[in-house]
Amino acid sequence: MITAGIIGANGYTGIELVRLLQRHPHVKLLHTGSRSLAGKPYAGEIGSLRSRTELEFRNASLEETAAECDVVFLALPHGIASAQVTTDILKRSCINDLGADYRLKSRRVYEQWYGVEHGSPQLLEQAVYGLPEIVGRRALSDKNLIANPGCYTTASILSTAPIAQAGIGSVPYIIDAKSGVSGAGRQASQGLMFGEVNESIKAYKVKAHRHTPEIEQMLGQLAGSEVGVQFTPHLVPMNRGILTTTYIRPTEEIAGQLTEEKLRGLYEDMYEGDTFIRLLPDGVFPETRWVHGSNYVDIGLSYDQRTGIIIVVAALDNLVKGAAGQAIQNMNIRFGFEETVGLGDIPLFP
Amino acid sequence: MITAGIIGANGYTGIELVRLLQRHPHVKLLHTGSRSLAGKPYAGEIGSLRSRTELEFRNASLEETAAECDVVFLALPHGIASAQVTTDILKRSCINDLGADYRLKSRRVYEQWYGVEHGSPQLLEQAVYGLPEIVGRRALSDKNLIANPGCYTTASILSTAPIAQAGIGSVPYIIDAKSGVSGAGRQASQGLMFGEVNESIKAYKVKAHRHTPEIEQMLGQLAGSEVGVQFTPHLVPMNRGILTTTYIRPTEEIAGQLTEEKLRGLYEDMYEGDTFIRLLPDGVFPETRWVHGSNYVDIGLSYDQRTGIIIVVAALDNLVKGAAGQAIQNMNIRFGFEETVGLGDIPLFP
Amino acid sequence: MITAGIIGANGYTGIELVRLLQRHPHVKLLHTGSRSLAGKPYAGEIGSLRSRTELEFRNASLEETAAECDVVFLALPHGIASAQVTTDILKRSCINDLGADYRLKSRRVYEQWYGVEHGSPQLLEQAVYGLPEIVGRRALSDKNLIANPGCYTTASILSTAPIAQAGIGSVPYIIDAKSGVSGAGRQASQGLMFGEVNESIKAYKVKAHRHTPEIEQMLGQLAGSEVGVQFTPHLVPMNRGILTTTYIRPTEEIAGQLTEEKLRGLYEDMYEGDTFIRLLPDGVFPETRWVHGSNYVDIGLSYDQRTGIIIVVAALDNLVKGAAGQAIQNMNIRFGFEETVGLGDIPLFP
Amino acid sequence: MITAGIIGANGYTGIELVRLLQRHPHVKLLHTGSRSLAGKPYAGEIGSLRSRTELEFRNASLEETAAECDVVFLALPHGIASAQVTTDILKRSCINDLGADYRLKSRRVYEQWYGVEHGSPQLLEQAVYGLPEIVGRRALSDKNLIANPGCYTTASILSTAPIAQAGIGSVPYIIDAKSGVSGAGRQASQGLMFGEVNESIKAYKVKAHRHTPEIEQMLGQLAGSEVGVQFTPHLVPMNRGILTTTYIRPTEEIAGQLTEEKLRGLYEDMYEGDTFIRLLPDGVFPETRWVHGSNYVDIGLSYDQRTGIIIVVAALDNLVKGAAGQAIQNMNIRFGFEETVGLGDIPLFP
Repeated sequence: MITAGIIGANGYTGIELVRLLQRHPHVKLLHTGSRSLAGKPYAGEIGSLRSRTELEFRNASLEETAAECDVVFLALPHGIASAQVTTDILKRSCINDLGADYRLKSRRVYEQWYGVEHGSPQLLEQAVYGLPEIVGRRALSDKNLIANPGCYTTASILSTAPIAQAGIGSVPYIIDAKSGVSGAGRQASQGLMFGEVNESIKAYKVKAHRHTPEIEQMLGQLAGSEVGVQFTPHLVPMNRGILTTTYIRPTEEIAGQLTEEKLRGLYEDMYEGDTFIRLLPDGVFPETRWVHGSNYVDIGLSYDQRTGIIIVVAALDNLVKGAAGQAIQNMNIRFGFEETVGLGDIPLFP
Repeated sequence: MITAGIIGANGYTGIELVRLLQRHPHVKLLHTGSRSLAGKPYAGEIGSLRSRTELEFRNASLEETAAECDVVFLALPHGIASAQVTTDILKRSCINDLGADYRLKSRRVYEQWYGVEHGSPQLLEQAVYGLPEIVGRRALSDKNLIANPGCYTTASILSTAPIAQAGIGSVPYIIDAKSGVSGAGRQASQGLMFGEVNESIKAYKVKAHRHTPEIEQMLGQLAGSEVGVQFTPHLVPMNRGILTTTYIRPTEEIAGQLTEEKLRGLYEDMYEGDTFIRLLPDGVFPETRWVHGSNYVDIGLSYDQRTGIIIVVAALDNLVKGAAGQAIQNMNIRFGFEETVGLGDIPLFP
Repeated sequence: MITAGIIGANGYTGIELVRLLQRHPHVKLLHTGSRSLAGKPYAGEIGSLRSRTELEFRNASLEETAAECDVVFLALPHGIASAQVTTDILKRSCINDLGADYRLKSRRVYEQWYGVEHGSPQLLEQAVYGLPEIVGRRALSDKNLIANPGCYTTASILSTAPIAQAGIGSVPYIIDAKSGVSGAGRQASQGLMFGEVNESIKAYKVKAHRHTPEIEQMLGQLAGSEVGVQFTPHLVPMNRGILTTTYIRPTEEIAGQLTEEKLRGLYEDMYEGDTFIRLLPDGVFPETRWVHGSNYVDIGLSYDQRTGIIIVVAALDNLVKGAAGQAIQNMNIRFGFEETVGLGDIPLFP
Repeated sequence: MITAGIIGANGYTGIELVRLLQRHPHVKLLHTGSRSLAGKPYAGEIGSLRSRTELEFRNASLEETAAECDVVFLALPHGIASAQVTTDILKRSCINDLGADYRLKSRRVYEQWYGVEHGSPQLLEQAVYGLPEIVGRRALSDKNLIANPGCYTTASILSTAPIAQAGIGSVPYIIDAKSGVSGAGRQASQGLMFGEVNESIKAYKVKAHRHTPEIEQMLGQLAGSEVGVQFTPHLVPMNRGILTTTYIRPTEEIAGQLTEEKLRGLYEDMYEGDTFIRLLPDGVFPETRWVHGSNYVDIGLSYDQRTGIIIVVAALDNLVKGAAGQAIQNMNIRFGFEETVGLGDIPLFP
């Protein structure tokens, strides 16, 4: 049994962490942090937790929280975590960051895309990128600073990693991503109001979304060379779910011999034994409804002989495998629990 | 460990039963029945179950299914169950019917509201109405024919039972109910298509909905006298969730002395110890988002001194406490398991 | 040709006014007011108007606006209009207020329900309540201060006025209302974000909604005696549309002789010649999809002999007949145009 | 004044045609055809038209309809129109087909993609492709067989035609399209039910959608050489709206010198004077909410210097510019009316 705290427990990611941690057999949740709601009963604000927790929102510092918790989840806007995490804190507690501050290895790239100074660049090297299917479980086992990938990033990397690793794709990969609204957070803003979002779809942050360098970093590592991506997110009128549709032209060397079967082989090899990745059969493509509320990533593959384009479609729940679920998966590995414990929910349909 | 089968496993209720039973620690699900999909892998049709079950749809008769299963869930249109259940079957297996055939005690009332002949009226008496918070756990303990209440009915009865039992409400109770679309089933029909339902709300089956006599039967039993209800259902563009708003004028005897506090006392007394009923604090009213995917019923109370009307609002998930969850709750009680086992999901928000 | 201005042109009601006025053959829209967006092109902010208007948002006072416009529409939160309208302004321009400040005839009732002081109680008497089907066209013909009814109010009054006028209903009338989200305005707030509203329904402001006294005032005038209402609004996950379901017990005198036919007769008499009221045939009930984007109010009637309750269902588009459309209808009458001009849109389905 | 008939007046396209034609100043709608609803009042089935039309559904043949109508709109599944249109019919009436039968110039390509025999291949040559911004108004002026483009096709072609014509794009163009549900028609099917579509997004008909050859045909004509497209449609939980996001790599010759400004110049040149095409300013991208209910196509452009990819985003309402509106635009041109008459609706927001 380990103790856990959440800083930023009032956002969608924080609420999802509470939902999952409250039922986790090896975790005792001690702390639900929020500055604005400090002192209020958690279940009074977040009605889904009514009768399930006696916790109150508290406004404790990261230092205080780390002092009492074996693991602290940070669900904060970028720039805040990096100003607060210290080597001392990392000696006492495992910091499981769901924000962007420790994802990019290059301080320069971070500051360029995020437009803020990084508060603790000396910690970047020791941060482990929490995508266990890619970085491997061993990489996580003794780490106290886990940088969880973004929601779009998780879908984008997992659905193209085998191609990058095999070096069979021309760059840039074209990733057309679609997300439910919860990915944009719970802070009040006109652009996210029901009347603005419902009955509409739009592209946003065209050529400028901050998940781009994160995807490029990881695919580049796998490929051993730069992998540029054209990443375009879209906002879809639904609560949860990310779907990515990726278009890759095979390199000239491989183009003539590529088949869907060979392509599938690459994915089967890479994801063998990965419980949360479901490779769909030939001709079947993911739908976000089939992963809703679960930690699964569904992946469907196609190679269009007519046009010479590889199409990979992936679906996940942005709040589970794209955020809270993945952070718990990482925690499980880090603390030596079974990787899947607490993450066994079957998708909720409809 | 008991064995279970589902007949009608391809509808929304059937799919929800599979979701809940697959994770139930004391149940082994053996049979997922469907005439139209017989022979197909369950998870191939219902993608949420992919990697979670190897079962196939089978077209087995109730008799065959009952022969191999300790409990058989029937998720069928009305009229079918009553034509198939026999005393012999009930000797071998517990029939847990989610349809309407055994809910009404009076064959005449059934035939009048449903417009079909009842196929096994001799079994009506032995059927137990599966609303444990009202009928009591003991009533269920040795029964092999459980008639699960309808989704609207569960919300309507639970939110007004204390008033009926105390005899403080004038009739008719006015129940204005709102439901998500999954309550109408999964059979293709133009009226339930996205383009017809989205961005619209309507009342339907005004003064004619078949859950009416069921509500009246149970409230009447509690009151010891006839309790008429004016029940009006509405279709709301959302997948899951029922909200009932009930208006009751107190009887003249009680009107002068009634307070919200006294009213609340009736509910607290009746539902003491009922895990799945969450009585909300003063001034707080239910929202279906806070029960989404769970077996909870949230109830909020108000007495408007200005107008002299009691207002009770209740929310539940029509596929869980309104169908599959309640059926499993009844199964748990019937087989001596802890009542809440397998039903511990925290509501999924957003 | 008259000139028009809108103060508060950036909210949903303001945007709808622009949509309708830009196509109105007798109106030249001169002014779209907004404090926060002053100086920005209207169509740059409200993309639906792109290529349809060259107007910019301006931050002009009511006085300035009234000086150049024959009619000024106020789409403002309550309390602001009453602080700004003066007798002088009313001499120069017709003030067509879509807010609450001049709806209630009693300053005391206003201040009690709205919790603010009324800024110009001396003008209350000369304000005309802009519900032409009820107050009559003549009442509007020479008035320079029009108080447009609220969205819920319009549906509630129009669907029960014939009963109130005939004096056949017992009080309180029970009005269970359901609204799309645009009724709550466009100001950013967490409670109206997509992730909070989608896939949920709730009652709100139970026994305390401010449209209550407005409904009671008008029904009381028609009845010649107090008509209390129990008004409960609900928030529905859709952009537009209001549905009210009203339950009325006939008075004892009438109860024995009441039939649906007689009931229908009252409505036919009252609404004869009213283009925007569509009385639905026997057994047919309104759905908001059939009025979407139009100025219609659909009304369906039922009398349940079994329970002795009258049920009236009404649907309208809260931004058209519930706000902008009605204000234009009033303007048409006030300025001697044909009542329906500029309001001929057929509902947009789906 | 011309007379018009619709065959298939009960589908979403048919209903939209009625909505638009009923308000068209130069058209008298005489006939609303439906086999299944023959004899029923149109407004009794399609409630939005209540009080707006006295027409009944009739089951008249194309021949009979053409005998009484100057223009006949066909809103039928593919394969039906081509079996019924004859040279004789075309002598009497203008056939304005919204289906697929006359869109492709090559019978072979049609039969390959649609899997049915073409019923009147001899008419293919005389059919004019009804995309006036591309084919020119003159092409339509004396034609009696108009093949209206598909909804996806209209967005895809209009958003890439300037690039194809200038010959600056490498093939295949990658078109990632997203559509609301009404594009799939009104025929009852489980896959389009609310519970299946809501809260989910999916790709479908990957590498196999029938609009592909239509897009390729027109872009190829403009380019003077084959233009392959990788077209992937997605189903989005909303009623109306199509968004296409297209990715094109410039040819090697142009790549070094291309700028967004030059790109924009191509579009401005091609669409000068086209009322229904709204080219958005630099950095602004379309959202379907801003074209909802209107005949507009909004187009936004970007050239990502970092990756060397052109991104074009387009939005339209699939039932207006993607179907009924475009057909009426074509009719206007064909009969010498002003092109925009009857199509002046400002988008309905929200």
